[in-house]
Amino acid sequence: MTLDSSPELDAMYEGFDREHLVPLWTQLDDLMPMTPAPRAVPHVWKWDRLYDLARTAGDLVPVGRGGERRAIGLENPGLGGKAYVSPTLWAAIQYLGPRETAPEHRHSQNAFRFVVEGEGVWTVVNGDPVRMSRGDLLLTPGWNFHGHHNETDQPMAWIDGLDIPFSQTNDVGFFEYGSERVTDDATPRFSRSERLWCHPGLRPLSGLRDTVSSPVAAYRWEHTDEALTQQLLLEEEGVPATVDQGHAAVRYVNPTTGGDIMPTIRAQFHRLRAGTTTPSRREVGSSVYQVFQGEGSVVLGDTEHHLGTGDLFVVPSWVPCSLRAKTHFDLFHFSDAPIMERLHFDRMHIEEGER
Amino acid sequence: MTLDSSPELDAMYEGFDREHLVPLWTQLDDLMPMTPAPRAVPHVWKWDRLYDLARTAGDLVPVGRGGERRAIGLENPGLGGKAYVSPTLWAAIQYLGPRETAPEHRHSQNAFRFVVEGEGVWTVVNGDPVRMSRGDLLLTPGWNFHGHHNETDQPMAWIDGLDIPFSQTNDVGFFEYGSERVTDDATPRFSRSERLWCHPGLRPLSGLRDTVSSPVAAYRWEHTDEALTQQLLLEEEGVPATVDQGHAAVRYVNPTTGGDIMPTIRAQFHRLRAGTTTPSRREVGSSVYQVFQGEGSVVLGDTEHHLGTGDLFVVPSWVPCSLRAKTHFDLFHFSDAPIMERLHFDRMHIEEGER
Amino acid sequence: MTLDSSPELDAMYEGFDREHLVPLWTQLDDLMPMTPAPRAVPHVWKWDRLYDLARTAGDLVPVGRGGERRAIGLENPGLGGKAYVSPTLWAAIQYLGPRETAPEHRHSQNAFRFVVEGEGVWTVVNGDPVRMSRGDLLLTPGWNFHGHHNETDQPMAWIDGLDIPFSQTNDVGFFEYGSERVTDDATPRFSRSERLWCHPGLRPLSGLRDTVSSPVAAYRWEHTDEALTQQLLLEEEGVPATVDQGHAAVRYVNPTTGGDIMPTIRAQFHRLRAGTTTPSRREVGSSVYQVFQGEGSVVLGDTEHHLGTGDLFVVPSWVPCSLRAKTHFDLFHFSDAPIMERLHFDRMHIEEGER
Amino acid sequence: MTLDSSPELDAMYEGFDREHLVPLWTQLDDLMPMTPAPRAVPHVWKWDRLYDLARTAGDLVPVGRGGERRAIGLENPGLGGKAYVSPTLWAAIQYLGPRETAPEHRHSQNAFRFVVEGEGVWTVVNGDPVRMSRGDLLLTPGWNFHGHHNETDQPMAWIDGLDIPFSQTNDVGFFEYGSERVTDDATPRFSRSERLWCHPGLRPLSGLRDTVSSPVAAYRWEHTDEALTQQLLLEEEGVPATVDQGHAAVRYVNPTTGGDIMPTIRAQFHRLRAGTTTPSRREVGSSVYQVFQGEGSVVLGDTEHHLGTGDLFVVPSWVPCSLRAKTHFDLFHFSDAPIMERLHFDRMHIEEGER
Repeated sequence: MTLDSSPELDAMYEGFDREHLVPLWTQLDDLMPMTPAPRAVPHVWKWDRLYDLARTAGDLVPVGRGGERRAIGLENPGLGGKAYVSPTLWAAIQYLGPRETAPEHRHSQNAFRFVVEGEGVWTVVNGDPVRMSRGDLLLTPGWNFHGHHNETDQPMAWIDGLDIPFSQTNDVGFFEYGSERVTDDATPRFSRSERLWCHPGLRPLSGLRDTVSSPVAAYRWEHTDEALTQQLLLEEEGVPATVDQGHAAVRYVNPTTGGDIMPTIRAQFHRLRAGTTTPSRREVGSSVYQVFQGEGSVVLGDTEHHLGTGDLFVVPSWVPCSLRAKTHFDLFHFSDAPIMERLHFDRMHIEEGER
Repeated sequence: MTLDSSPELDAMYEGFDREHLVPLWTQLDDLMPMTPAPRAVPHVWKWDRLYDLARTAGDLVPVGRGGERRAIGLENPGLGGKAYVSPTLWAAIQYLGPRETAPEHRHSQNAFRFVVEGEGVWTVVNGDPVRMSRGDLLLTPGWNFHGHHNETDQPMAWIDGLDIPFSQTNDVGFFEYGSERVTDDATPRFSRSERLWCHPGLRPLSGLRDTVSSPVAAYRWEHTDEALTQQLLLEEEGVPATVDQGHAAVRYVNPTTGGDIMPTIRAQFHRLRAGTTTPSRREVGSSVYQVFQGEGSVVLGDTEHHLGTGDLFVVPSWVPCSLRAKTHFDLFHFSDAPIMERLHFDRMHIEEGER
Repeated sequence: MTLDSSPELDAMYEGFDREHLVPLWTQLDDLMPMTPAPRAVPHVWKWDRLYDLARTAGDLVPVGRGGERRAIGLENPGLGGKAYVSPTLWAAIQYLGPRETAPEHRHSQNAFRFVVEGEGVWTVVNGDPVRMSRGDLLLTPGWNFHGHHNETDQPMAWIDGLDIPFSQTNDVGFFEYGSERVTDDATPRFSRSERLWCHPGLRPLSGLRDTVSSPVAAYRWEHTDEALTQQLLLEEEGVPATVDQGHAAVRYVNPTTGGDIMPTIRAQFHRLRAGTTTPSRREVGSSVYQVFQGEGSVVLGDTEHHLGTGDLFVVPSWVPCSLRAKTHFDLFHFSDAPIMERLHFDRMHIEEGER
Repeated sequence: MTLDSSPELDAMYEGFDREHLVPLWTQLDDLMPMTPAPRAVPHVWKWDRLYDLARTAGDLVPVGRGGERRAIGLENPGLGGKAYVSPTLWAAIQYLGPRETAPEHRHSQNAFRFVVEGEGVWTVVNGDPVRMSRGDLLLTPGWNFHGHHNETDQPMAWIDGLDIPFSQTNDVGFFEYGSERVTDDATPRFSRSERLWCHPGLRPLSGLRDTVSSPVAAYRWEHTDEALTQQLLLEEEGVPATVDQGHAAVRYVNPTTGGDIMPTIRAQFHRLRAGTTTPSRREVGSSVYQVFQGEGSVVLGDTEHHLGTGDLFVVPSWVPCSLRAKTHFDLFHFSDAPIMERLHFDRMHIEEGER
């Protein structure tokens, strides 16, 4: 809405400035667009370039108290300046050199790690040592102490996902330092949380109280792979098991509720048969994917991006997204969907013409 | 309260009879006792006698449409006449001879089977063939079609648990006949429901809608055994994992909610180290236990009952119950606790002196 | 299923008896009917006969510790011997003479009172004096102390509804005596619970914890009448507000959850315009109605029963029920629907031909 | 963490820039402070200055399609440039001249209005005309069409509260134009939603489905005032009813759930007796208060601000806040607490020394 300039109008706008007021009529289109108009843009990060820079950081930047982590965050080009991959999510590559330790701390922010390659690091979550291996999802929900240590002579890198942008924008975060060394440097094959919780359909009587976040510290690749394999086999047998034809998928869940692993972050894993294309889908809220294995592409809006192992991409709110599998194609996926659903802003639209 | 007899009083009581009325003051103690005063009594059934009678029934009683099942129900001596093991629960031994088939049907009543010995039968639940093996818990929640067939030359027996008494007392049950033969006579090692659902912490994206009862048709002994083994190992390592010292236990749960497998029946499994005695505990609601392996006893009220493999016992509401393990002692356990908790009648009391 | 008699069969059945076993095949039709086959039958009690007998009891039977209440329970003719109006519900007329007091006690059983006529009694619930007037619903959820006292020179009668049959069958009840006199003999117009809780859409910050049962001790006729009046006016204006054409209805709810007032009992109030007939409806679970004002009838199964003010009738599970209003017709209604819904046994069927 | 400059380090940081990466170690303190470190600051807006500017806007700025509303938003001085009163909340004064109409539209953003003075406007929510009067809270939850029209010869102003900042930051908003005129220009005393829903403890059987937001369009001052009055009277009688001594408070709730009125916004009303000081309290999340009547002050951090009728202030996350009542002191209050609680970021701290 445009108004003809006048001394009275100018005086009024000056009054607004003086009193810390801003009229709706000059900002309405920006504040309340017809459909979500994210500043964040779709973007792809190539794993080999990330890994090279992380290795350089491994040579030049120490890890320890103060900096806390050798983590390099993905900065959405539309949200310049901060390592926000989206308005709600943080994604980073973290790198730990041979025999290094990242000291313990805790924070309100919910965090996970996903391992696309490598092994040899244990993350210690509230005193429970958790092996990190290829294909595993590891959780450190808000306010759990955690540190990492590399017990080998090889470096290791993985991705971290957190709700740092949401936390910072909304001023919800607390932070506390813990031990400089990890509190338990054992290197067991399975964490205590897995030994207590990872028996399908069985809940320990010592754990009957529902928890806000999953009590499971590690979701192992063996289980994920088997679940996806079975879905595709069942599909071949004519049993409904996949989300779409040729598209198997699982959600990582909190076994005490059957719901998401953490209050702000959803994590899922997708497997596409070679040749499969998923329908173009828009969703309110933002997502990040990492290719775990295979080759394919993603169409984000009108642009197709080719993808190989380790490549990451972000899908801002309401941007159409379709996956295409050139080979058998495995992708890890996380999003802020629990925020959208709990606040009832979730909407989804499948573009019919695209199928 | 006693009143002196008089013609007026007699006339009033006659009026009550005629009008279908009953005064509270003559029945109060019976209707509203100070603590639960069950007509049901504690009782033990010995497995070898049950099994002998079931084998005889196998010789004399055919299985087929009409009788439907060769099931012999445990009759609580205090609830004489009907096969009510408690006011809410039914427990029976079911026996299927070589090559026999129990025809398909469905009913509102929730049902499960637990296998203390034997193998060779598949139960087909809504078209999904489910192998029944030693130590397995098999579900047929309300209104799922199910039939059983024995593919071997050996008979097989197991126990059935249902909410028939609750259903009959409260007039909630519907029943429908299905196929005379099972609808799928395949004998796969794992049911489709297991292949879709039994990956710890992983939920298929094709199964995001919560279900009233568990979608898992079979809870396998391998998982139960491992979960209990790990709890006792964790306890040895000083990690809180068991319910009580020397007492490991799991609850079978619905993975879509983390809650009980069915709306009326809770199922659990207990493992006691040799020498362990559990604190004497009273609970509102009734329970049935079956010894799976090992030797021990149960103290119900003031009476100790010795127990061996396959023996069953019932614990009526508010009867003190303590388990004693002579050897390593494994027990399957089911109860009406979901009814009590959902209606907020649950209460529990641990008798301190007993510890 | 009938089997030819034989010595072996006889021996087997003797073995069953000896071992407290009952076979399914002889009882199946009884235990698992095709549709609910209640022993309870539909029945109508006429208010004037109830009231006459209650008045006689007022003359002949004292009220006080031991008998506790001068309550006369409705005995379903199909459930003979006990004052069970249905397998789950108790309904009684309670009568308190001039200046009498019914002593305080508490019990696990959930209770309410509904006042079809009269006034002058206060029920004291956990120390809060609650006026009882015509058209009011008064609650005493499980384990709340309560006593009644009549402050006038007139007797007063009302109906009590409880879950005594459910409680007794399932052995869930505890009972405790309280004060011989009421703990607070004030006679305020409004109870403290109403003053704190009965402001529409407003929740006290001192009451943010959800409660199992409603914290509201009294639901006043003024509100019920106004709510029903508005529904019918809105219907006249073409706004969807009634359940069926000419049929206004409200459910009494717990303001902390929006759900039923107590875990086992639902209470509702129905108003039919003169001339309205409700569709014939079957429901799993049992209901009791009391006519509050007006004239009409109910068709239960094939039988029509004429009804006037104060008359009560019971609808057993799955019995078709249709209401017919000769005049403006107001009915109070309670049922065990929360039990059925929480245990997922609820089913409903509207007979289309009847509309 | 500071690192010595070197060509290698510079090259690495250039690589980060090129690849859209930002290291954690340079931003950690900003991203993850020890306690919430909001950019938003405490601030007070004086009602008379707001009102004067709104009146000027009434003279100079038309209301109609395009600009949609003559709303002037409060801009937090720490969040400069946009009318964000906090990172999640929007608060504005809206002004409607005599006989003016603000056209209908709908949007994902949740909105309410609170009236500190005046009358004569009806807001039409999904076709239901809702009178706006002094002390009333009016709701337009997300995606409900709404427009306003002034039926008098006097202007009227009120405050609007929305979740625009949350919506914009997180890209969740949709917007749609509706009718240019209101769809129903009737001016009834009570909206249809009130006539259906505002009977304490009574739920229409036509409204048994729980709703995400409250179905009540108007919470009337008469009820709020009475609820607060009763709390203070009960306190005087020694009954626990207030939050703190001398501090009555109610939360506006959704009657279908007992929970907050909308998924992102909590609304409450506080009444302090003259002389009362509330304990200094920090909370995660942001709040806005408007004085409804009376005189007093608020201490935000170390600064005391004097307050009179209509004055507004914002409390950013974790800023200590204490209210002081010079006279009887009534305040309307809204916050983003439902966001914090649903995502489990809520924390509260009462500073003991302050009491």
